[in-house]
Amino acid sequence: MPHFERIRYKPIPVRELLVEMKNLSELMIDLAYSAALFNDKELAEVVLDLESRVDTLAYLLDMEIMVASRGDPKDAEALIGVSTVAAATDKISDAAADIAAIVTHNIGVHPIVSAIFEKVEERLMKATVKEDSVIAGKQICALELAARMGVDIIAIRRNKDWIINPEETERVFPGDVLITRGAPIGIKAFKDLAEGKLAKAEEST
Amino acid sequence: MPHFERIRYKPIPVRELLVEMKNLSELMIDLAYSAALFNDKELAEVVLDLESRVDTLAYLLDMEIMVASRGDPKDAEALIGVSTVAAATDKISDAAADIAAIVTHNIGVHPIVSAIFEKVEERLMKATVKEDSVIAGKQICALELAARMGVDIIAIRRNKDWIINPEETERVFPGDVLITRGAPIGIKAFKDLAEGKLAKAEEST
Repeated sequence: MPHFERIRYKPIPVRELLVEMKNLSELMIDLAYSAALFNDKELAEVVLDLESRVDTLAYLLDMEIMVASRGDPKDAEALIGVSTVAAATDKISDAAADIAAIVTHNIGVHPIVSAIFEKVEERLMKATVKEDSVIAGKQICALELAARMGVDIIAIRRNKDWIINPEETERVFPGDVLITRGAPIGIKAFKDLAEGKLAKAEEST
Repeated sequence: MPHFERIRYKPIPVRELLVEMKNLSELMIDLAYSAALFNDKELAEVVLDLESRVDTLAYLLDMEIMVASRGDPKDAEALIGVSTVAAATDKISDAAADIAAIVTHNIGVHPIVSAIFEKVEERLMKATVKEDSVIAGKQICALELAARMGVDIIAIRRNKDWIINPEETERVFPGDVLITRGAPIGIKAFKDLAEGKLAKAEEST
């Protein structure tokens, strides 16, 4: 039986909680589709873990909002938008977990479901970094992926672990499995870079 | 009081229903954030209408799945993934409607909520097509936006109407307000094109 942590009030800025909930929930949708697309059970489990993280953030945020409103109706009015957006991100993360659960429950992707992945496939790609790739050993920020190719690395699988939403200072190493998100041309060019089939990002444009 | 249409079983392929639900739900998130970001009540109302469209699709899909399973447990097992993904897209569209309702209810965007829009702003942009723009009068497909700039037009406001997820054969006209989605550099360059500040897409790269 999993151990559930007792949620206690901790003073964390509401802004910080809300930004994390929003970012996590959007990322989770792409990770859940990736898990289904690549039939990756471990990645699906990561999504389920993130869902419980979002739930915890939602509790903390709700408590923070109650405290912040100080019993004042005016403050409550001002804060209702915040709690509404937070609840929406929570719903989105639930939806992502539902999709991930298809993978963990071995339900299998029905041919009808594959149809909806055609569009997802244009936007998400998996690439393994090769020894001779120009990106091997480089920091993500040095690659200037977002600016040059409109590409974003959303997850790295290194050995048995998944690094979700890696920091810009994180390096990519040979053997890393990267999940990237972006425009079709960009993610295709990046896959070629990672796999050592392309020596420079410029050659792809 | 709004008139609610009676939902009757219509034979529509499940695949078609599911693809439309998935596409609409993702689009709705971006439209809801756009409505909040640009404080656009009419766009928020469009999102609420789309939410009721997704609800109708969900009813039709559920009925279609019941019929398709023909009372056979094997078919039911095969189809459970489809109904799970459909339910997830329905949740996402509900979340989008919740965000849009902040705008229609005049709740106002609290400074804390603005913080989460900083990242949204990098991805969504609004541009008005000027008379002297090179794109004026052109079909969307002729602009090759997705391939060249990683940009997607998700909505067009023409006079009082919103055209959501326009067809590739749709033309853009002077005065049209476009909502675009894409990588920061791409949407910035496209805004310059639309506003006549840039004569060719190539100059931006």
